[in-house]
Amino acid sequence: MKKLLDKLKDIRTNSCKAVFIALLLTGSAIFAQKIKKNEPLVIAEQGSFAVGGTIIQNEGTFDPYKPTPSGQTFRGDHAYVFYQVPEKAHKYPLIMWHGIGQFSKTFETTPDGGEGYQNIFLRRKFSVYLIDQPRRGNAGRSTAAAIINPIPDEQQWFDTFRIGVWPKYFEGVQFAKDTATLNQYFRSMVPNIGPIDIKVNTDAVSALFNKIGPAILLTHSHSGGMGWLTAIKNQNVKAIVSYEPGSGFLFPEGEVPAPIASSAGPLEASAVPMKDFMELTKIPIVIYYGDNIPEKPSDNPGADGWRARLAMARLWRDAVNKKGGDVTVVHLPEAGLKGNTHFPFSDLNNIQVADLMSGWLKEKGLDK
Amino acid sequence: MKKLLDKLKDIRTNSCKAVFIALLLTGSAIFAQKIKKNEPLVIAEQGSFAVGGTIIQNEGTFDPYKPTPSGQTFRGDHAYVFYQVPEKAHKYPLIMWHGIGQFSKTFETTPDGGEGYQNIFLRRKFSVYLIDQPRRGNAGRSTAAAIINPIPDEQQWFDTFRIGVWPKYFEGVQFAKDTATLNQYFRSMVPNIGPIDIKVNTDAVSALFNKIGPAILLTHSHSGGMGWLTAIKNQNVKAIVSYEPGSGFLFPEGEVPAPIASSAGPLEASAVPMKDFMELTKIPIVIYYGDNIPEKPSDNPGADGWRARLAMARLWRDAVNKKGGDVTVVHLPEAGLKGNTHFPFSDLNNIQVADLMSGWLKEKGLDK
Repeated sequence: MKKLLDKLKDIRTNSCKAVFIALLLTGSAIFAQKIKKNEPLVIAEQGSFAVGGTIIQNEGTFDPYKPTPSGQTFRGDHAYVFYQVPEKAHKYPLIMWHGIGQFSKTFETTPDGGEGYQNIFLRRKFSVYLIDQPRRGNAGRSTAAAIINPIPDEQQWFDTFRIGVWPKYFEGVQFAKDTATLNQYFRSMVPNIGPIDIKVNTDAVSALFNKIGPAILLTHSHSGGMGWLTAIKNQNVKAIVSYEPGSGFLFPEGEVPAPIASSAGPLEASAVPMKDFMELTKIPIVIYYGDNIPEKPSDNPGADGWRARLAMARLWRDAVNKKGGDVTVVHLPEAGLKGNTHFPFSDLNNIQVADLMSGWLKEKGLDK
Repeated sequence: MKKLLDKLKDIRTNSCKAVFIALLLTGSAIFAQKIKKNEPLVIAEQGSFAVGGTIIQNEGTFDPYKPTPSGQTFRGDHAYVFYQVPEKAHKYPLIMWHGIGQFSKTFETTPDGGEGYQNIFLRRKFSVYLIDQPRRGNAGRSTAAAIINPIPDEQQWFDTFRIGVWPKYFEGVQFAKDTATLNQYFRSMVPNIGPIDIKVNTDAVSALFNKIGPAILLTHSHSGGMGWLTAIKNQNVKAIVSYEPGSGFLFPEGEVPAPIASSAGPLEASAVPMKDFMELTKIPIVIYYGDNIPEKPSDNPGADGWRARLAMARLWRDAVNKKGGDVTVVHLPEAGLKGNTHFPFSDLNNIQVADLMSGWLKEKGLDK
């Protein structure tokens, strides 16, 4: 497996090589050095902490000599955060929030062993904060009871995350087709420990923004909708980059569009007071969707849900921009990036996907 | 809270200052620079992966158009590993394995906001691999069903982890006495997702040693016993540093000592075939225990269990060394380090605790 991973790394390095060739067409002595190996990361500071959460306080008095739950406490429902600050970091950190069934790993090493957004944006001089949302992964101490069963579900994720239609991969998909990659991909999931609670999650992430100050929020899939809610709660959210937001599009009361039908079920939007909605017009927002989203209704529910979500994202963009907002929706194939799955930031071409995001950050003056 | 954390950082920096003063008594131009701020970490490589684990394969055929669990798979019971390789790393990486109720955080930022063993040993040029053991934290995908309830337990951990006797801290304890520190400390726990399975855990960690090759294993508390088992399974375990091993001391069949009574219950040792036991005589092993362990039987079960464990560790040392092994047991107060809790590597004096470990590694030629 190690050999295979090394081989995949070579492929990835070679695709980086192409980028460097493009960048260094005029020729340079540092060229050979650049393509040989990644430069080291120079990290001014790194660490982890819990943020937000609540406390259960049992009645009674604790007896150290005959301990029972009486009089004891239980802290839970916090988020867990691992952060790294590179030397000479830009002003605004990037806060990265995983999607459904995922945790911070989603931004770390890619399934095929390449560098994920954590390393890519550290190299681009952003401080990077990776979240495990409450009741997930390293933030697993939940104040709600949980029953967790190992129900086989991987083939369904393969389809819903648009790698292909099991067992076939999409032609040209940006996902390595070896079994070691698939193994790492499926092992990057963790269960919810207790119900997903939107308020608990957005409270914890808002607490993070209170702690660290103004920053850029990057969301994925299920955290997309929670990202809009967090921006309404906390003005330290200075911009949002959202990869494939899956649900929770917020419209002003009375202006909510009809549900969009799909074979994955109807996609409904939600209502918020106009005052809250207007918060979303005050920050730049970019939304990216990958490839292999059907243009017309399809009986493949894994893929068809994304047709509805992309359509809803465009309705939402128009609604926010009509009120003076700054929302951009990018369907990656239209921007020349083909074959992306539901996880563009960890796909084989994630350097190019990151380049697109870097261009947008630059355009909005967010990379100073 | 941020101010308080900053203040605590100052205190910690000042205690580091004392160390630097001791190191630099002869005077040096770099002194002022050294005490001002930690040097940046120069990381040649970092990333994460899952290792080990099993697969559940459901019978039947998966239908992408009408998905049910039929014909689907579920991967679980792997360990999750985050690793960093510093520039000019020593030959042997340090593999750090958390204790009961804990996860990789135990070696990251300390509860009071200082640097943990992850950063400390990266600075000392060791590659550092942090484990979340199977069914814990970011390795939460478990093939066993789980029922998880939020049962208040923090006061009992305060006592068992020897911070004090709730609500009183031990005099001179190496643990900051503010509420923010206690909050971070208790939020560094996560539940087991399914039963703790010693074979599942040691198989996964052994798979890690197969993947990365010869390395030094650092264990804490409950992973102590699993560490001995991993060394029996895998000859890539080149040495073991064990902080406060809690159970699972292994003796040759027929030579198992009688259980040691304590108010926490009797501490029993386990039997292994002589052939397995002899594997433990082939590598250097050091065991550290902290302070505030009663010398005589005590009716405080939180503390008294450690009296039994320290006594058992000494019996075990003698048994291994009698067969030609190299086991050292260090009771930290005897080495001049006072006030340590059950977590010496994240206590306020963890630099001194690390210095002791570095001295041992050097003595055994493990820091080349």
